[in-house]
Amino acid sequence: MKERSKLLGYRESIKVVDATLRDGGLVNDFYFSDEFVKNLYQTNIDAGVDYMEFGYRASKKVFDESKFGKWKFCSDEHIREIVGENDTPLKLAVMADIGRHNKDDFDQKVNSPVDLIRVATYMHQLPDAIDMIEDAAKKGYETSCNIMAISNASEEDIKVALDMVCQTPVDVIYIVDSFGSLYPEQMARMADMYTSIADKYGKKVGIHAHNNQQLAFANTIEACGDGVDWLDATYREMGRGAGNCAMELLLGFLKNPKYDVFPVLKFIENNMNDFKENGIVWGYDLQYLITGLMNQHPRTAIAFTKDKRKDYAEFYNEILDI
Amino acid sequence: MKERSKLLGYRESIKVVDATLRDGGLVNDFYFSDEFVKNLYQTNIDAGVDYMEFGYRASKKVFDESKFGKWKFCSDEHIREIVGENDTPLKLAVMADIGRHNKDDFDQKVNSPVDLIRVATYMHQLPDAIDMIEDAAKKGYETSCNIMAISNASEEDIKVALDMVCQTPVDVIYIVDSFGSLYPEQMARMADMYTSIADKYGKKVGIHAHNNQQLAFANTIEACGDGVDWLDATYREMGRGAGNCAMELLLGFLKNPKYDVFPVLKFIENNMNDFKENGIVWGYDLQYLITGLMNQHPRTAIAFTKDKRKDYAEFYNEILDI
Repeated sequence: MKERSKLLGYRESIKVVDATLRDGGLVNDFYFSDEFVKNLYQTNIDAGVDYMEFGYRASKKVFDESKFGKWKFCSDEHIREIVGENDTPLKLAVMADIGRHNKDDFDQKVNSPVDLIRVATYMHQLPDAIDMIEDAAKKGYETSCNIMAISNASEEDIKVALDMVCQTPVDVIYIVDSFGSLYPEQMARMADMYTSIADKYGKKVGIHAHNNQQLAFANTIEACGDGVDWLDATYREMGRGAGNCAMELLLGFLKNPKYDVFPVLKFIENNMNDFKENGIVWGYDLQYLITGLMNQHPRTAIAFTKDKRKDYAEFYNEILDI
Repeated sequence: MKERSKLLGYRESIKVVDATLRDGGLVNDFYFSDEFVKNLYQTNIDAGVDYMEFGYRASKKVFDESKFGKWKFCSDEHIREIVGENDTPLKLAVMADIGRHNKDDFDQKVNSPVDLIRVATYMHQLPDAIDMIEDAAKKGYETSCNIMAISNASEEDIKVALDMVCQTPVDVIYIVDSFGSLYPEQMARMADMYTSIADKYGKKVGIHAHNNQQLAFANTIEACGDGVDWLDATYREMGRGAGNCAMELLLGFLKNPKYDVFPVLKFIENNMNDFKENGIVWGYDLQYLITGLMNQHPRTAIAFTKDKRKDYAEFYNEILDI
């Protein structure tokens, strides 16, 4: 049983990361209006959020620029149009998705409004991720390493991977429950494994959860109680498939007086109420429960949602066959 | 950290209680069709559910029978029309809501298809609840005591209440998070308090959770891991306000091979897809997060939902003023 002080007090070391544009962008192909992004930026400042992820910095050699909104590519210029010189306590992040990035798209930190490069990688891409982390750190950025789909990896492989990553200049290593398949008891063990390795190297640990089994918030506060300091969330849990940990739940939970849930509610009311009416759909539903339960990528459930299917039992049988 | 065996193995002593008709009935004034109820009964049998709660047995002296569906009153006759002699492993329950019940409405067990009387009470009604438990036990029923709104009670008062209730013939005492305001860490402490008192008297402990902060399932499996044996759930989490712990999540989690999530998915697909289209609305939304966070009864959030309001920030200010 955790210490009561962890509920009533707070740790200064906790950082809240808003991933709405990046994970939410997977739902609307990154077509956010400038007004939306400006309001979100201001709201993050008002709510005391520590980092705001603006999107992916995807390679234009890999993706056709005409088929996505600009936050798929997240140029320094586009970010500057929103934040100017960002003379605020809010730090800015972009994600480099290994295999779909291009190191040359990242300028020296002194020329960029970006503070943090988040490097997303699968286990088998680790050497490429380490190369990217080292390049970004050398350019002057903070870095995190987000190893995805760990619920499909063996603990011994994860330990080796963490040891490899921790020998780089990386600042934060993330527990990423890509499939929303982990229960809080398992999250507690992951947090124990990640923090004990990270502590040895003086690194921080983060958590990025998905809501396939309505456990994104529960897993995030479980990890937080277990000593994980960097907490990802998105407004109204907007994110791929079943979505993420909701920012409004997380800021309601955290006790540091610098966090304020009120501007988050106001932002949602003014900027997100019409998304679902306009066909931009995410969030928990039975198809995501099924892929989460089976520890599978949600792509089949996303297709099920897109096709407006409701035959959950048939889908369950299809997933069992995969 | 809990024992790994609690995730991979299972306890024979766990009982799953379907509360769809009772808590879900609060959403549609108990107007379920006979076809719906028959299908739900059969599905519970197929899914290995242990108990099915048919509704409240409310006093017709307190409520106008013409204004509710029959499962608000749950007569033995109406139950028999669905289950016959119920020659199945599924046991049947009804709820007596203290102050809104009438002892005389409960026949001797030998004349009734009902197995379990669930006695719902607030702390201040405890002597009346104890009277009802003793009467029901004398008539031959199993009994549970569901003390509501404990998140507003002091721990010392709860301990006194549990000691009082445990001195009756009651079989199960329930942890009831009526306002959906407890975090898993707090639930762990509640489970510890309830089970240590219940163990002394040879009683079982149950958990009935609400989803205001998307923690109904998380709190249910937290309590389960802490030794709580009776687990309430509802299909598609149908229940008052933000709803309950979803049966489909719970049966996906439990490892006893007698439980089967497939019939639950099939039932939802065939019987519950059109509820929301017909204006029967429940489930997590920001207004429920707000009352949960403030540890308040969800009635204001239910009114907000009914009025189709979306001004969450204004609602937050209203709730702060209460």
